[in-house]
Amino acid sequence: MAAGTSADRVTLVEVGPRDGLQNEKEILPLATKVALIERLAEAGLPVIEAGAFVSPKWVPQMADSGAVLRAIHRKPGVRYPVLVPNLQGYAAARAAGVDEIAVFGAASETFTRKNINCSIAESLERFRPVCAQARADGVAIRGYISCVLGCPYEGAVPLSKVVEVAEALSAMGAAEISLGDTIGVGTAGAARAMLQAVAASVPMAQLAVHFHDTWGQALANILACLEAGVRVVDSSVAGLGGCPYAKGAAGNVASEDVAYLLQGLGLETGIDLERLAAAGRFISDALGRPPVSKAARALAARQAA
Amino acid sequence: MAAGTSADRVTLVEVGPRDGLQNEKEILPLATKVALIERLAEAGLPVIEAGAFVSPKWVPQMADSGAVLRAIHRKPGVRYPVLVPNLQGYAAARAAGVDEIAVFGAASETFTRKNINCSIAESLERFRPVCAQARADGVAIRGYISCVLGCPYEGAVPLSKVVEVAEALSAMGAAEISLGDTIGVGTAGAARAMLQAVAASVPMAQLAVHFHDTWGQALANILACLEAGVRVVDSSVAGLGGCPYAKGAAGNVASEDVAYLLQGLGLETGIDLERLAAAGRFISDALGRPPVSKAARALAARQAA
Repeated sequence: MAAGTSADRVTLVEVGPRDGLQNEKEILPLATKVALIERLAEAGLPVIEAGAFVSPKWVPQMADSGAVLRAIHRKPGVRYPVLVPNLQGYAAARAAGVDEIAVFGAASETFTRKNINCSIAESLERFRPVCAQARADGVAIRGYISCVLGCPYEGAVPLSKVVEVAEALSAMGAAEISLGDTIGVGTAGAARAMLQAVAASVPMAQLAVHFHDTWGQALANILACLEAGVRVVDSSVAGLGGCPYAKGAAGNVASEDVAYLLQGLGLETGIDLERLAAAGRFISDALGRPPVSKAARALAARQAA
Repeated sequence: MAAGTSADRVTLVEVGPRDGLQNEKEILPLATKVALIERLAEAGLPVIEAGAFVSPKWVPQMADSGAVLRAIHRKPGVRYPVLVPNLQGYAAARAAGVDEIAVFGAASETFTRKNINCSIAESLERFRPVCAQARADGVAIRGYISCVLGCPYEGAVPLSKVVEVAEALSAMGAAEISLGDTIGVGTAGAARAMLQAVAASVPMAQLAVHFHDTWGQALANILACLEAGVRVVDSSVAGLGGCPYAKGAAGNVASEDVAYLLQGLGLETGIDLERLAAAGRFISDALGRPPVSKAARALAARQAA
């Protein structure tokens, strides 16, 4: 990448309202979720993961996703994908007007077993009818692969497994595949090597990267992957999904920090950093804690000065 | 850089006991400072900035640097530079057994004026007799240049000014020149371009980079500079010098996060990450707050599990 000189465009996929809020203890009111999503769209985020149609028993934070999707004012041109695990969730999502879904796989057998009690192959079989229906309905599909740089149970994960799952999701019609370092253990060289291995099988233009800042490496990993050619990056406003005071917090990389990096590199995002940071302060206030974003804090300090 | 494949060596310059503690409000007892420095040496840090021989009126945190330098057990092969602004400080440092000094310049006229009430050219003139004496005594010289990617007063800083100051310090005999983004505003492309501009005048082997994580960019900047060939990186254990709860905290990049990155890239540092993190917990406990290092927190969570 000719950093700082390219007029390249990077798409930020904002996962705060789903991946973020799903991993916060507090369950926020519907109006707060709707306001967050609308503020993010107004800040220029082109893709906002807006909810999950999963069992409210397991994920009470997302129990009102249907109502959220019905309530939001949709900004033209913005994508609002939602997580859908099965045909039942798919039907509910469609009834709420959803036109892009995401399915959630993993590159680790043990993680898949502990998470959804089946093998990777079985999990892919579960996605197959959902993806077939989505394709038939003209609904776009985003595929997640978690544990691409390590598994909390297995440790190292073979690259071949990541490639295999990416190929399977691509074959099912996933237009975008997000490669997630779920436990945030990866460093830049490994991140780049993983991305390049997948890009040998699935076109780079279909790939996204999804880093957690658990070990402080997220932005360096994103830089390494941008240099390798990726142009879609997942992030979470205010670092939603990782509590600053909890040990071993999940730590989604903060959208503000990524947006500041991209701006500095001269990569186009369409994002207004100040409005993005304001959306982050809004939701952080609702959660009663400061944003987990250094750029947001530095910006606030600059504005106060 | 062939990240992950090179057996390259990177030297971490630990600035916590000086740059870090100097910017903490609390003034720690002598024994705590001595214990910190010794623990850092035992963790494998090859260079530990151990104090500053400056006016105790302006920098009370460093008032006992002479006593610190006399008290520490020096590990063979480890360098213990100290900050010295003038001949008076130099004499005091030498009396305490110091054999490496650091002088502190800046690439911004306004910053220099506000900080030490003179022009850049005048500041360099002040260093000249100190450096001449050091050379005569066989004392190694480290030169700092602050504001290399931006100034709190001027905003952008011309690259030509950074190069000019680096050339002047090199000509005075500085064997190592540390390029500091004092306010942490720089992003990866700018950091790399700045380093490359300086390296066109002063050999890369003589250069170090010094990043603050104020905008969350430090590790990405370090990665970009490693890729450009730098092999000396300044960092601060537990992120000393930046308070996690203060707005606009200075935010030295945490040594633990840098060490984890370098380890992942397969770059040799000689550092034992667990012992380094333990030193960080020790000094954080003394300050009554958690370490500002995500790697340290993640490691603690892993050890607790």
